[in-house]
Amino acid sequence: MGDGCNMEGVSVEAASLAGHWGLGKLVVFYDDNHISIDGHTDISFTEDVCARYAAQGWHVQHVVNGNTDMNGIRDAIARAKSVTDKPSLIKVTTIIGYGSPNKADSHDVHGAALGAAEVAATRANLKWDYPPFVVPEDVKKHMGECIANGAASEAAWKATVSAYEAKYPKEAKEFKQLISGELPAGWEAALPSYTPADKAVASRIHSQTCLNALAPVLPGLIGGSADLAPSNMTLMKMFGDFQKDTPAERNMRFGVREHGMGAIVNGMLLHNSGLIPYCATFFIFTDYMRGAMRVSALSEAGIIFVMTHDSIGLGEDGPTHQPVEHLASFRAMPNMLVMRPGDANESSGAYKVAIKNRKRPTLLALSRQALPNLAGTSLDGVAKGGYIVHGDAAATPDVILMATGSELSMTVDAAKELEKAGKKVRVVSMVCWELFEEQSKEYKASVLPAAVKARVSVEAGHTMGWHKYVGDAGICIGVDDFGASAPANIIYEKLGLTAANIVKQAMSLCK
Amino acid sequence: MGDGCNMEGVSVEAASLAGHWGLGKLVVFYDDNHISIDGHTDISFTEDVCARYAAQGWHVQHVVNGNTDMNGIRDAIARAKSVTDKPSLIKVTTIIGYGSPNKADSHDVHGAALGAAEVAATRANLKWDYPPFVVPEDVKKHMGECIANGAASEAAWKATVSAYEAKYPKEAKEFKQLISGELPAGWEAALPSYTPADKAVASRIHSQTCLNALAPVLPGLIGGSADLAPSNMTLMKMFGDFQKDTPAERNMRFGVREHGMGAIVNGMLLHNSGLIPYCATFFIFTDYMRGAMRVSALSEAGIIFVMTHDSIGLGEDGPTHQPVEHLASFRAMPNMLVMRPGDANESSGAYKVAIKNRKRPTLLALSRQALPNLAGTSLDGVAKGGYIVHGDAAATPDVILMATGSELSMTVDAAKELEKAGKKVRVVSMVCWELFEEQSKEYKASVLPAAVKARVSVEAGHTMGWHKYVGDAGICIGVDDFGASAPANIIYEKLGLTAANIVKQAMSLCK
Repeated sequence: MGDGCNMEGVSVEAASLAGHWGLGKLVVFYDDNHISIDGHTDISFTEDVCARYAAQGWHVQHVVNGNTDMNGIRDAIARAKSVTDKPSLIKVTTIIGYGSPNKADSHDVHGAALGAAEVAATRANLKWDYPPFVVPEDVKKHMGECIANGAASEAAWKATVSAYEAKYPKEAKEFKQLISGELPAGWEAALPSYTPADKAVASRIHSQTCLNALAPVLPGLIGGSADLAPSNMTLMKMFGDFQKDTPAERNMRFGVREHGMGAIVNGMLLHNSGLIPYCATFFIFTDYMRGAMRVSALSEAGIIFVMTHDSIGLGEDGPTHQPVEHLASFRAMPNMLVMRPGDANESSGAYKVAIKNRKRPTLLALSRQALPNLAGTSLDGVAKGGYIVHGDAAATPDVILMATGSELSMTVDAAKELEKAGKKVRVVSMVCWELFEEQSKEYKASVLPAAVKARVSVEAGHTMGWHKYVGDAGICIGVDDFGASAPANIIYEKLGLTAANIVKQAMSLCK
Repeated sequence: MGDGCNMEGVSVEAASLAGHWGLGKLVVFYDDNHISIDGHTDISFTEDVCARYAAQGWHVQHVVNGNTDMNGIRDAIARAKSVTDKPSLIKVTTIIGYGSPNKADSHDVHGAALGAAEVAATRANLKWDYPPFVVPEDVKKHMGECIANGAASEAAWKATVSAYEAKYPKEAKEFKQLISGELPAGWEAALPSYTPADKAVASRIHSQTCLNALAPVLPGLIGGSADLAPSNMTLMKMFGDFQKDTPAERNMRFGVREHGMGAIVNGMLLHNSGLIPYCATFFIFTDYMRGAMRVSALSEAGIIFVMTHDSIGLGEDGPTHQPVEHLASFRAMPNMLVMRPGDANESSGAYKVAIKNRKRPTLLALSRQALPNLAGTSLDGVAKGGYIVHGDAAATPDVILMATGSELSMTVDAAKELEKAGKKVRVVSMVCWELFEEQSKEYKASVLPAAVKARVSVEAGHTMGWHKYVGDAGICIGVDDFGASAPANIIYEKLGLTAANIVKQAMSLCK
């Protein structure tokens, strides 16, 4: 870490959990060179970093002369390793650009090259007489020892695995499966499917059902919530809490630390552990962890983001808690699958996609409110991102209605009303735009035929992006302003998210 | 603050700066009730909060029995006020739901009402015999003293202001102007305007010119960067750094603390100080401060967000630093003005809008790379959000090209090429979608006539949202995937952001 890392709140969140969990294997070097881009850290960073880490339960050391005191650093590492019940911070005070006679200890060496003249001056100052790119023999020899050391470490590791395999064949098989990165055969069979007769519950509850169904067949599934487990419905009931003394348990308690949570699950996955981490909070609080979510997408880390209370439908908590722009904002993020399932089958389908996609993260936008189960939804449909859930697929409709998530059932209701008025209506679930875009041109045209210009989109979120699907003649029903504080059904009514308004808007296009 | 507040990284960022600045007037109560939504804080929060604040330079006290030790709290407040060179934390240990015999000290009283039976039991337990909503006489009398105390405070304050006014008439006038919330008359005259003969520089440089031109005429203008001042170009050259011993200076040094920075400028503005705070970082790092920016928008706080390095045009730093989805994501945020000026005049126009809008925040997306000055740009045009910068406004064009920011000049170049091929071309600068949407139907139709279906949008960002303007027949040129690490001109070439590709796409629509 550098000075800047220690200024960022996310590092403090992560450090707090590392101390709480007693991560004894973690050794952090803090390069205390007191220079950042704006100059000396005196201008903005004067706290006692070591005392702060100590307050968070870390073992803390300070190497005062990090420029030349190699033995001091070596000893500090040895001591850090000997403390196995706490993470260790080694603050190493250094001079940035050490050896450069004119630029050391200034921000001139932070982000720019020294330049030829200063390189020459630095060589002279450090008495470095070798030509450029020449590695002295004694250095080469010393570093060459790493080969033998590495081979010995690898052999020791393999012997440990073999001994483990002999003694615990079942566990070893599971372990090898896990680190292979492949999913165990037949895991999909654990996912539940439903009929319209099944009880209407919130998609956050379906999410919990999926997590609990998958946990026994996916030993790598591990995760939790940022202090919202009873609201996000993320507990795996057969497991206890992952804590300092119970590391085999699989429910993680992240506290109110969204950004740290996102960074931690990224690390768990990118360690190539074979773990399938999920994490959870209210959808609105992705605003606090967006940086980590972008890292998931950019690093091809198949994290599952369980984001509940996904719209104005959360009700009385009001605009501070009601996501509006969030669906659009994540649909614009490359390599992020944004899934907004509309009922039970779609929730199972969303989990199927999320588990399969080990190289891209999935954001599950889930409802607080109960959602009726629809006749036309399916796991296979969800895998296509957009599909027909109501209406004759073979006939050309008079109007196409599109919806996602909690608005899907009211849209089907609207279709039935329109049919009573003699209209041919198709309802398309646009559960995941990214997957729909990846389908063949033919498939997309079969779902959204170019000839049908009368189109209405329905989603309790900002309409940005929907024009691509509704076209020039279409109408977007959505929420383009901040929500309101009231029970969900009242807000929906006020903002025109009702079957009656969908019928009205659709009729205006069918004249 | 509660336990959860102290888990969030943003509070640590803010606390670090409060300690650094020595904010002696700040007294923070920390209600240490050790219960959050997931249960006891033991499961995720076991650090020594007081020691952490002490490490950050705070004066720290602990009231052990916050339930009944009123004198202890009173004394702690008096001591906190007596320490004037440090902010004060008073940790007050309490029992949540104190007095409730069956629900105290549990998360059952965190977010839900007690219920009638438990209310009755609590009343009995606390020996509270008054009927509901009755305030006992002695309580009323005690609280009534606040009226006289408040009147005395107000009178003392007014006397201070009068004395100040008599002694320092000029400064008092400025102070009164400031807290009136009105902008001083004629401030707009300070904004520079340009001709195409002026040197091509980056819009981040124009931003610096505007800040330095406005600083003398707007005494409330104050702000800075999150450790990127030399890159964001945010220093007001006539001022020094706002620091503990130099509180009259106006350049703030936020360190690498984007979220804390956003929260701090919100507080400065919402205190009704009349200050006009700006803050700055790379556009990509809005991911770290989005929560604070949403608070600006929702709270109607006219913050100016100076966001530079606004696209793949930043070059070699690569995809981790290249915003792609960010323009779309903020355009979807209600009450946030997203401005992406294309040259010098548009940069001045963007500042004019930003300063005027004291009730909504403005995000300025600014280039790292130099931008030529165009003949058709204007401050008045920018105020309309979208306007014609090239082509005959009276004639119906064969094709409309739309662009923002750094892509505006290459789009004008493409128009000139197309004109050589005999096409009538209009170029529209879509510098601020939100302002364009607010224009009259007639104005919008005059800029984007419905009859012209051949439309191309050009922007070095995700194409989400542009379909609304280019329509069913149009083409969006943009960046729908993560960028790449290379010099700006090479990335632009590879991704088709060139005049040649604009010409090609436009010709495909003009057949």
